[in-house]
Amino acid sequence: MAGGTPTADVTTEQANAIIQAGVQKAHDLDLLMNIAVVDVGGNLKAFTRMDGAWLGSIDIAIKKARTARLFDMPSGDLGPMAQPGQPLYHIEFSNGGLITFPGGIPLANGNGQVVGAVGASGSTVDNDQAVARAGVSAFDATGTQ
Amino acid sequence: MAGGTPTADVTTEQANAIIQAGVQKAHDLDLLMNIAVVDVGGNLKAFTRMDGAWLGSIDIAIKKARTARLFDMPSGDLGPMAQPGQPLYHIEFSNGGLITFPGGIPLANGNGQVVGAVGASGSTVDNDQAVARAGVSAFDATGTQ
Amino acid sequence: MAGGTPTADVTTEQANAIIQAGVQKAHDLDLLMNIAVVDVGGNLKAFTRMDGAWLGSIDIAIKKARTARLFDMPSGDLGPMAQPGQPLYHIEFSNGGLITFPGGIPLANGNGQVVGAVGASGSTVDNDQAVARAGVSAFDATGTQ
Amino acid sequence: MAGGTPTADVTTEQANAIIQAGVQKAHDLDLLMNIAVVDVGGNLKAFTRMDGAWLGSIDIAIKKARTARLFDMPSGDLGPMAQPGQPLYHIEFSNGGLITFPGGIPLANGNGQVVGAVGASGSTVDNDQAVARAGVSAFDATGTQ
Repeated sequence: MAGGTPTADVTTEQANAIIQAGVQKAHDLDLLMNIAVVDVGGNLKAFTRMDGAWLGSIDIAIKKARTARLFDMPSGDLGPMAQPGQPLYHIEFSNGGLITFPGGIPLANGNGQVVGAVGASGSTVDNDQAVARAGVSAFDATGTQ
Repeated sequence: MAGGTPTADVTTEQANAIIQAGVQKAHDLDLLMNIAVVDVGGNLKAFTRMDGAWLGSIDIAIKKARTARLFDMPSGDLGPMAQPGQPLYHIEFSNGGLITFPGGIPLANGNGQVVGAVGASGSTVDNDQAVARAGVSAFDATGTQ
Repeated sequence: MAGGTPTADVTTEQANAIIQAGVQKAHDLDLLMNIAVVDVGGNLKAFTRMDGAWLGSIDIAIKKARTARLFDMPSGDLGPMAQPGQPLYHIEFSNGGLITFPGGIPLANGNGQVVGAVGASGSTVDNDQAVARAGVSAFDATGTQ
Repeated sequence: MAGGTPTADVTTEQANAIIQAGVQKAHDLDLLMNIAVVDVGGNLKAFTRMDGAWLGSIDIAIKKARTARLFDMPSGDLGPMAQPGQPLYHIEFSNGGLITFPGGIPLANGNGQVVGAVGASGSTVDNDQAVARAGVSAFDATGTQ
């Protein structure tokens, strides 16, 4: 029986739940956010921009999510390594553009397998990260898979 | 005190209604769709990809929506003019990439002002156009605000 | 009948007034400037390059204006946050290229709504900023419309 | 005496006259236009977008002007040669994007030297070309140089 690596992928239903939770968190914190979800392949799955959120954060939210999935770690974890003199200096130039500050977080299923990522942008990086975390929590709550 | 041209913009609520209607239409027609909404400035407002929909249609759905807003006409209206020997041959190479086949439709408010656009991609151009049209109908039904 | 968020946009007449005021300021300070105005969507509205002004400042003036609109703040406000070790390090690589030093300023109407931005480039960042400010003053003087 | 090729360049004053004449022509024909002027080096010199003109024509107007200067001929003259099976097929992919339909015209001084170009976009190619021609006439009227 031919197969290939068994895999899993974030679903549209999960992506919607992630975005709804992020928007809810943004409302709670009085923020205006751009929120993106990418799938297991790093491709855009869902996106929303709240009315009045920064136009410049469209691209950043998507790139944060992509960065988190491309390296299976929070986008902000790359930041220290991407500084001048550090091992990954200028990694942001690769892959059509990465973002190495916080706000992008991988989505891992119950087996620890990364199946996508969420990215948020529209405020300070701490706020962006809080919104992304809310999205991850919503994903985690969608069940065992 | 400065003003500027009064204008209008598609809202997040409207964008969500557009996408939900498009997804519903896709279900009705047994299709898997990518659906994008851009705002008055041609910037991404909302996006969703149904589970299993073509990855190659992410970019196309977004470009269809952008094309429809950039020229305030259905993307498919540009197609005949963009053929070899026709007046707008290769216009697709402008603006970072356009799509000149059907599936992108402008969103015009009650004053006839274009405030954004919807783009759908994932099947035949006729099906894509039908899904985009369902989105426009949902937009038209969102009321005067 | 659909509506959308009421908003506003910088007009061609205002853009011309902004550029004329910027050029006048440049003459006063004995500078050669590139001056750009973008609209509410971040799209180019007007541009001029004074005879002898740096060619390299064409792109920078436009990107300063775009940056100011994309984040609704003066381009220079992003600079400190974009330094090595700071929260937005390398944000310049997003959005097709940003400029995070002074010379780009948002245009806000009487309601505090950002309807576009002006960017100036051709001298020191202080001089660039002074020219952009002259443009903003001219915009503010264009009245309520 | 060391020199280099004697050259000439379109001035800001001329660029403004070109754009004003183009806008006037657009008013006469009831059109909404984007008009760009590039200099002897093919670099942007001046640009304006009339209120309500197509957003997608910003890039096209600039590329028409660039194309006309890059090859010292009207952009539309390249069209027949850029068709499938013809000698310059897909030339539009070069130079960061060209436009090979009408609306871009070189600016030649009294010595037949090309010193820049004008590009217009916003309507049919015939209308675009008429607006660009009005710009050229205004340039020709600026004197002997």
